[in-house]
Amino acid sequence: MDPEAFLDVANQVIKLKMFPFFDIAHSLLAALAVREDLGANAQAFSRKHPLACWLSTMLVIFAGGMVANGLLGEPILAPLKNTGQLLVGTAVWYVVFYTPFDIGYKVAKFLPVKIVASAMKEIYRAKKVYDGVGHAAKLYPNAWIIMIIIGTLKGNGAGFTKLIERLIRGAWTPTAMEFMQPSFYTKASLLASIIFVLDKKTDWISAPHALVYFGIVIFLVYFKLSSILLGIHDPFLPLENLCCAIFFGGIWDSLAKILGRGQAKDGDSKDVKKNN
Amino acid sequence: MDPEAFLDVANQVIKLKMFPFFDIAHSLLAALAVREDLGANAQAFSRKHPLACWLSTMLVIFAGGMVANGLLGEPILAPLKNTGQLLVGTAVWYVVFYTPFDIGYKVAKFLPVKIVASAMKEIYRAKKVYDGVGHAAKLYPNAWIIMIIIGTLKGNGAGFTKLIERLIRGAWTPTAMEFMQPSFYTKASLLASIIFVLDKKTDWISAPHALVYFGIVIFLVYFKLSSILLGIHDPFLPLENLCCAIFFGGIWDSLAKILGRGQAKDGDSKDVKKNN
Amino acid sequence: MDPEAFLDVANQVIKLKMFPFFDIAHSLLAALAVREDLGANAQAFSRKHPLACWLSTMLVIFAGGMVANGLLGEPILAPLKNTGQLLVGTAVWYVVFYTPFDIGYKVAKFLPVKIVASAMKEIYRAKKVYDGVGHAAKLYPNAWIIMIIIGTLKGNGAGFTKLIERLIRGAWTPTAMEFMQPSFYTKASLLASIIFVLDKKTDWISAPHALVYFGIVIFLVYFKLSSILLGIHDPFLPLENLCCAIFFGGIWDSLAKILGRGQAKDGDSKDVKKNN
Repeated sequence: MDPEAFLDVANQVIKLKMFPFFDIAHSLLAALAVREDLGANAQAFSRKHPLACWLSTMLVIFAGGMVANGLLGEPILAPLKNTGQLLVGTAVWYVVFYTPFDIGYKVAKFLPVKIVASAMKEIYRAKKVYDGVGHAAKLYPNAWIIMIIIGTLKGNGAGFTKLIERLIRGAWTPTAMEFMQPSFYTKASLLASIIFVLDKKTDWISAPHALVYFGIVIFLVYFKLSSILLGIHDPFLPLENLCCAIFFGGIWDSLAKILGRGQAKDGDSKDVKKNN
Repeated sequence: MDPEAFLDVANQVIKLKMFPFFDIAHSLLAALAVREDLGANAQAFSRKHPLACWLSTMLVIFAGGMVANGLLGEPILAPLKNTGQLLVGTAVWYVVFYTPFDIGYKVAKFLPVKIVASAMKEIYRAKKVYDGVGHAAKLYPNAWIIMIIIGTLKGNGAGFTKLIERLIRGAWTPTAMEFMQPSFYTKASLLASIIFVLDKKTDWISAPHALVYFGIVIFLVYFKLSSILLGIHDPFLPLENLCCAIFFGGIWDSLAKILGRGQAKDGDSKDVKKNN
Repeated sequence: MDPEAFLDVANQVIKLKMFPFFDIAHSLLAALAVREDLGANAQAFSRKHPLACWLSTMLVIFAGGMVANGLLGEPILAPLKNTGQLLVGTAVWYVVFYTPFDIGYKVAKFLPVKIVASAMKEIYRAKKVYDGVGHAAKLYPNAWIIMIIIGTLKGNGAGFTKLIERLIRGAWTPTAMEFMQPSFYTKASLLASIIFVLDKKTDWISAPHALVYFGIVIFLVYFKLSSILLGIHDPFLPLENLCCAIFFGGIWDSLAKILGRGQAKDGDSKDVKKNN
């Protein structure tokens, strides 16, 4: 492909308007996620508790903005002032849960629809991560960690509000904490945030800005599609295992075991327990 | 009644000073609610954990303002800067929990006292909803949903902080979520918020402003008293059932059942479960 | 000791630079607390969930600032902008959890190291309480209760975030609420806050400002060391029991029992239960 043309495409992607089509795709997947999280119970629940159902769907849709605002001391409700997004979200929620004969849900679950919506959502995710990093950089120009946290939260906010979202529906699952088993989306948003921060704050990345952005979009869409179509769920896993082995004790633990200190260590931890 | 005189009364109600008598009534009902929520355990708990007892009572008293501030990016602790209210609340808490021979509690439970306090609290509630809507309207002049949310939260804040309030006392009841089974107060505050927003932002309500306010006060007091005296707990219920039947799937579900698709639907939801 | 020299020492203590040595001590004790809270599970957990482990350690380290900011409407993430503290905290966390053969942990647990770190942490605590009270006083010059709350939270923030910290690690212990059984650190921070507020806002304390500060430092360090070395855990207990007996019903309850009303009271609380 001609590099010039490629850069042109990249420049177009960076300027894509999100409203309303990307918002529809995002809301659609959010409503589907809520419905599938409810499991076999979804039909009955949506009839009995429409308010809780609507609120938890809105929370999933606006999670990133709300959590980021909450952590940056800005109004948590501010994302709701975008009336257009709110109406789109409400309409999509209604279609997924309440259309006659469940037509809306069945259409949304139809594979081609899901693929298109997922691809659009990943493009939206890249934009959100990018905006999040930019916003945090304006507030704290030297605090890389805050930029990375906000970028990650904007990219996969719903992962971090899952506990609250379920709590709104009266379910409490404290072990389903995102930090314990970060999903692929969290890891990808984290990686994208780090790349955006490096691109913004250092000279290490020499590629034009639009290309970096486009590269992340392609990366996100590619892995999302391979997750749906090929069932590859976490391409980061090998890298992580390597990292854990080197930095987080894997090698040393093995060495300690080989040297016959494995038993001693078990003893140690028992001591700790007694001291408590 | 003479319309002129009626409007005069309405104008007086809108200018009523809340401090200190209405604050006393509000605090009294809050402390009673905490005490009754503790159940048979209340005496022992208040002796063993005065700090947790005081904190959870304060949370109930200031719930509306704190939650609304938290969601609007304002200081959560700000309501506490009102020293007068804080002292009144603390005094009432002390009287309800610690007076010799439990005199304070018995007086507070005495029906006429409870009726007067409840009526005063409803007048206070109307004012809080009104102030909440006005405050949100100043911040987000076009975001109706934010005005309605803040009005509702100010009107029945304690309902939404019940989980945190119990958590302070070491109890965790995730299924007691207000959104799942909104109480009459939440629904009434919601309705009042919507009416105030319509009155403020549209020309649909032609009645003078003071009359609208007075009407809501009467509505709230009337249903509170009929709830205490006659045991009518939720006049919204018939309306809700109608609404659910029309908009949230009731009719379509019945139709689907009649057409013999009820079984198919059950099958569907089982599939969803398997996919998870 | 010469009063002049004493005042000199006090003036030096008040100007002590905290970074980096006091931050190292504070982070070390925070990481140890996380590790001991994990119990026998710590080794395995830190290998499997490094992210959750790091996040919960950071939460413990920055708890005071984050909670205080959250309650004052300031950015919760702001404490993280202090890159130096963040790096120190991360390095200490790494040393405590991942050094080969667990050397870091063993050194940190070594009694003399722990004593020095604890003493330094108490000096740091005094400074945090002082800064917290000063910060709140700037925002709300007349709201004593807010100054006291913020001072206490800054002094023992980790106590109040314990629930969230454990939640990050996928554990939920709602009964471990700090308000139910305030630890010695909470009570000492509360007392220190009250003294600082009195010193700042009234003329009741005639001692020079530096001396008050130094007195609180000595008080905190002294009781910390006696807690480690002598096993005295809560010098406030006798005072509290006295206070409860006088103000929170102890005497009246005994009197009521003597007058044979104890049974009647039990009956009362059963009635309450029925009414619920």
